[in-house]
Amino acid sequence: MTDFGRTTLPYCSFVTEGAPHVGVGIGTQVLDLTRAASAIVPEHAELFADGSLDALMAAGPDVWHAVREALLAHQPASLLDDVELVLPFTVADYVDFYASEHHATNVGRIFRPGGDALTPNWKHLPIGYHGRAGTVVVSGTSIVRPSGQRRSPDGEITFGPSIKLDIEAELGFVVGVPSALATPVPIDQFAQHVFGVCLVNDWSARDIQAWEYVPLGPFLGKSFATSISPWIIPLAALEGARVEQPAQSPEPLPYLQGSEPWGFDLDFVVSINGTEVSRPPFASMYWTGAQMLAHMTVNGASLRTGDLFASGTISGAGVAERGSLLELSWNGTEPITLADGSTRSFLEDGDTVTISAVAHLARGEMLELGEVCGTIVGHP
Amino acid sequence: MTDFGRTTLPYCSFVTEGAPHVGVGIGTQVLDLTRAASAIVPEHAELFADGSLDALMAAGPDVWHAVREALLAHQPASLLDDVELVLPFTVADYVDFYASEHHATNVGRIFRPGGDALTPNWKHLPIGYHGRAGTVVVSGTSIVRPSGQRRSPDGEITFGPSIKLDIEAELGFVVGVPSALATPVPIDQFAQHVFGVCLVNDWSARDIQAWEYVPLGPFLGKSFATSISPWIIPLAALEGARVEQPAQSPEPLPYLQGSEPWGFDLDFVVSINGTEVSRPPFASMYWTGAQMLAHMTVNGASLRTGDLFASGTISGAGVAERGSLLELSWNGTEPITLADGSTRSFLEDGDTVTISAVAHLARGEMLELGEVCGTIVGHP
Repeated sequence: MTDFGRTTLPYCSFVTEGAPHVGVGIGTQVLDLTRAASAIVPEHAELFADGSLDALMAAGPDVWHAVREALLAHQPASLLDDVELVLPFTVADYVDFYASEHHATNVGRIFRPGGDALTPNWKHLPIGYHGRAGTVVVSGTSIVRPSGQRRSPDGEITFGPSIKLDIEAELGFVVGVPSALATPVPIDQFAQHVFGVCLVNDWSARDIQAWEYVPLGPFLGKSFATSISPWIIPLAALEGARVEQPAQSPEPLPYLQGSEPWGFDLDFVVSINGTEVSRPPFASMYWTGAQMLAHMTVNGASLRTGDLFASGTISGAGVAERGSLLELSWNGTEPITLADGSTRSFLEDGDTVTISAVAHLARGEMLELGEVCGTIVGHP
Repeated sequence: MTDFGRTTLPYCSFVTEGAPHVGVGIGTQVLDLTRAASAIVPEHAELFADGSLDALMAAGPDVWHAVREALLAHQPASLLDDVELVLPFTVADYVDFYASEHHATNVGRIFRPGGDALTPNWKHLPIGYHGRAGTVVVSGTSIVRPSGQRRSPDGEITFGPSIKLDIEAELGFVVGVPSALATPVPIDQFAQHVFGVCLVNDWSARDIQAWEYVPLGPFLGKSFATSISPWIIPLAALEGARVEQPAQSPEPLPYLQGSEPWGFDLDFVVSINGTEVSRPPFASMYWTGAQMLAHMTVNGASLRTGDLFASGTISGAGVAERGSLLELSWNGTEPITLADGSTRSFLEDGDTVTISAVAHLARGEMLELGEVCGTIVGHP
C-alpha cells in the first residue's frame, strides 16, 4: 500500500465483517474511523456510522477541519493492514473536463491535422461534458473490453471489441457541500464545496468514440467504466502543493477569475505492466478545478454531495509527459515499448495500468496520493 | 388534473402531512397507495413505505404485473384531490438521445446549411449523450433563465442571460431493473428493465449550446434544468399503443434489431401560455426506446434503478409537428404567433410551456399521459 505518512490523512471506505467502515490512511495502515470516531471525534461520530464518506462530505469545511485536527492530535493504538477497499462515496453526477492545453492540442493535431489544433472556444471556457456516474468503479475493478460500432478507414461499419482501448490519467475533484438550483457557485467558493481529490483513469475506446461523437460528444466510448482511486485526499492536505496555474490568454471572463491560486504541483506516473510509460505534470493544466467548478455552475446547475468532476487527460509539453496512449503512440503510428520488449499502441487483454501521483509541497516534502489501477479482461 | 381513467394506473409521489407517499391516478383523483397497499397488495406493501417509486421500480415485471392486476380489481373507497406532486423516483443517470429523423434533419439544415443534414453515423446508431441527473426537476418547478458565454455573429464573446431559451418535447423511459456491469442488455429485454414512461421537457439554451458544444457535446446549454411529468405511465398501460417504427435503411446491426415493435402511437401537444404551437407525433421517431436501451448498454455499461433516458426532441414531418422553438421559428427567422398576438422566436420571461400527450390504442381509445409544464423566471 501507499505510504501516506502521518499528515495526509486520506479517507477511504473498506469492508470488515461484511459491513463498510470509514478508514483513514496513516503510514501504510488504516485507522477504522467508524469504530474509533466515538473516542476521537465524539461530537461527529454519527458521520461515520454508515461506512461511506457521504455524511462527512456533506458536513462542510468546519467539520472537515475539526475531524482533521482531531486525527492529527490522535495517537492511534490499533491500525489495520490489507483492508478490502470499496467505492468510498456515492457518485452523484460525473463530469469530465478537457483542461490540458497540451492534451487538447495533441488530440487536435492527431484528428484534424490540417486545421487549428484547438477549437475556437477552448481558451474561453473549460470544455466539459457529463459522463456515466453509474459506471464509476473503484481501483482494482477489472475492465472488460467494450464492444461497439466502429468505422474502418475505408468507410465500412463493423461491430466488435474495441481495438483502440486507451487510458486517460486525470485528477478528480469530489464535491462535498451541495448548492441550490439557479445559484452559481463563485470561483472563490471552491474550498467551501470541494471535499478532496482522487486519481482517475477515464478508460476510453477511441475507435468507438471516433465514430459516435459528432455532434453530441463521447458516449459509449467512455461509459463502460471510469476507475477512481479508493483514497480521497482532503483538500487541506494539498495546501502546501498549491501553485499558480499557467498564464491565461485571452484573459478569461470575470466569473473564471479567482483571487487565489488553485493549481497543484502534482506529478503523475503512468505504468503498464510495471513499465513506467509517462509522467504527466498536473501543474501544467491550463484550467484549474476552481475554474471548472465556477463554469459548471454558472448556468445555475446545482451541486450534490458526491458530484465528481475530473480534469481531463493530463499531458505536459514533453513526449514522455502525455497522459493517454492516443498521444504516446500518436494514434498508433509510434508504438511504445515495454520492459519485456513488447510494444503497445493501445491496451491488450491482460494489461494492467497503474496511475499514481505525488504532491510536491512548497517546503520540499512530497506526499503520496495513492494509485488507481485496472486490468483489461478480454471480451467474453 | 389529467383524467387518467380507470386502466392507465399511472404512479406518482405526493406529499401528505410532510411525508412522501406513493399515489396511483384513478380518473382525476389519486389513490394513496402507501396507505392502502397493506389492504390491496399486502404481500408487496413494503415497496410503498418510503413514498418513492424506487422500490417498486426495482422489483421487476412480475411484481409490476401483480400490483397492476390488484389495482385493476380494487374498488377504491377514498380518493384524494389536488395533491402536491414531487419527483417520483431517484434519478440515477440521465441520457438524452436524438432519435427523430425530422428533428435531426431540421437541426442539420439550420446549422450546416451547405452540408449533409444528417451526420454519417445518424442512421447507424441512436446518437445519445449523458445529461445532468441532479437537475432533473418535477413539472411545475420554475425555470430560471440561465446565464452563460455566447459568441455573437461578429465573433465577440459575451456573457449574460440566454437569449435563445428553448424547449424540447420528449418522451422519457424510466429504468426499473438494474443490469450488471459488462453485460449488454439484449434489445428484446426492453420490457424486463423499463418500468414506464414520462413526458420530458429538455430545456435548452441554444446560444450557450452553440458556443460550447464542439467537440464534446452539450453541457451548460442543457444542464440547468430538465423537467419531467410527475406521473410515470407503466409500460403495460401502453401495450395497445405499440406500433411498428418507420422503416430503417440501412438495416441496423443485429444488436439493434428486435423481434417486437416498440414504436408508440402517441401525440404530443406543445402549448405556450395556452396557445397550442405544435403537435409532435411520437410514432414518427426513427429509433425506438428498445433500440436506445440496447445501444446504451452494448458496451457493457450497467443500468441502475432510476436511470432515465429520453428520446430527444420529437418532430414530425409537418411544420406544425416540430418539438422545439429552434425548428418552429427556424432559428428565429420565422417567429410564431401566440393567441394574444405576440410573437416568439424563443422563450420570454414569464412564459409557461406545457407539454401533454395522449396515446392512441389500437382499439380506437385514447389514454391521457399527463403533462409537464414550467414557467420561465428572469435571471435574478
